[in-house]
Amino acid sequence: MAGYSSHKDDFLKRLRRVEGQIRGLQRMVEQDTYCIDVLTQVSAASRALQSFALQLLDEHIECCVRDAISEGGQEAGTKIREANRAIARLVRS
Amino acid sequence: MAGYSSHKDDFLKRLRRVEGQIRGLQRMVEQDTYCIDVLTQVSAASRALQSFALQLLDEHIECCVRDAISEGGQEAGTKIREANRAIARLVRS
Amino acid sequence: MAGYSSHKDDFLKRLRRVEGQIRGLQRMVEQDTYCIDVLTQVSAASRALQSFALQLLDEHIECCVRDAISEGGQEAGTKIREANRAIARLVRS
Amino acid sequence: MAGYSSHKDDFLKRLRRVEGQIRGLQRMVEQDTYCIDVLTQVSAASRALQSFALQLLDEHIECCVRDAISEGGQEAGTKIREANRAIARLVRS
Repeated sequence: MAGYSSHKDDFLKRLRRVEGQIRGLQRMVEQDTYCIDVLTQVSAASRALQSFALQLLDEHIECCVRDAISEGGQEAGTKIREANRAIARLVRS
Repeated sequence: MAGYSSHKDDFLKRLRRVEGQIRGLQRMVEQDTYCIDVLTQVSAASRALQSFALQLLDEHIECCVRDAISEGGQEAGTKIREANRAIARLVRS
Repeated sequence: MAGYSSHKDDFLKRLRRVEGQIRGLQRMVEQDTYCIDVLTQVSAASRALQSFALQLLDEHIECCVRDAISEGGQEAGTKIREANRAIARLVRS
Repeated sequence: MAGYSSHKDDFLKRLRRVEGQIRGLQRMVEQDTYCIDVLTQVSAASRALQSFALQLLDEHIECCVRDAISEGGQEAGTKIREANRAIARLVRS
């Protein structure tokens, strides 16, 4: 089970919406839409992807990291370091 | 004509690759892939989208903004302000 | 005690280095340094500040959040939600 | 002359404010302020630095890049490529 398993439908809905935005971008490029309008749509898709990542991280900390710490043992430290690396990748991307 | 019209095929290829990444994310969620692995793939898609935006902005400045300034007149100022707003949106997103 | 208390000297050293970078920026502006060179230095200061934030968050999760979860009770949930909001602010800024 | 020379006082004032924020962060760390409160202040300083960078880039395009394009010749292309690299650094940092 992943941390987001109980919200799977919501997560898939969000991703399908992002996919729709990317297909919309393809139509814009095919129709030679003005650069600035394409860029505005790219920003919207980027923000949607970022929100998705933040919600995923949220569930991961709330479920997987929390469970590992509650159970104690070495797994807790591993999960914390792994989460910290994922946060750093997200902040820097 | 948009600033990217002469590179349209390359731009469409990049977008189709991002679309593939988003569909890959959907498969990962459907299969309850571990959160951290999903997040790594989200970062890759975000970076690809960011590179696309930067190349688009590049072409826009190289073509549309440059042409407007060369021709002079009011249009130059308008195009510069518009580009600056797009840059700010990109930096902040 | 804050999560970073055992690394306080290291944290202060990093901040003093960022302060030095900001003062360096002031000298550059006073001397009419070329815009692009100023921007390169701004990017360096931004990255230093971002690394500082990531290390701080790291210690916070490793100490404060971990302790709250280990002790259990309501405080755990509060600390997790608070950390998630801080991560979101960092990713979006 | 740099692109920002006519707004030098305003640019210096902004940088002194960021310096004040960084010194405030040092006091917070010295007093073992709670991690999350320190992080909130780091986000504020980061945003201030980002706004500074965007205004600087604004003036650079409005003055330096525009002048180079108006004058024509090789310098125009050089300035555009240089600006595009600076934008990419800013977006990625």
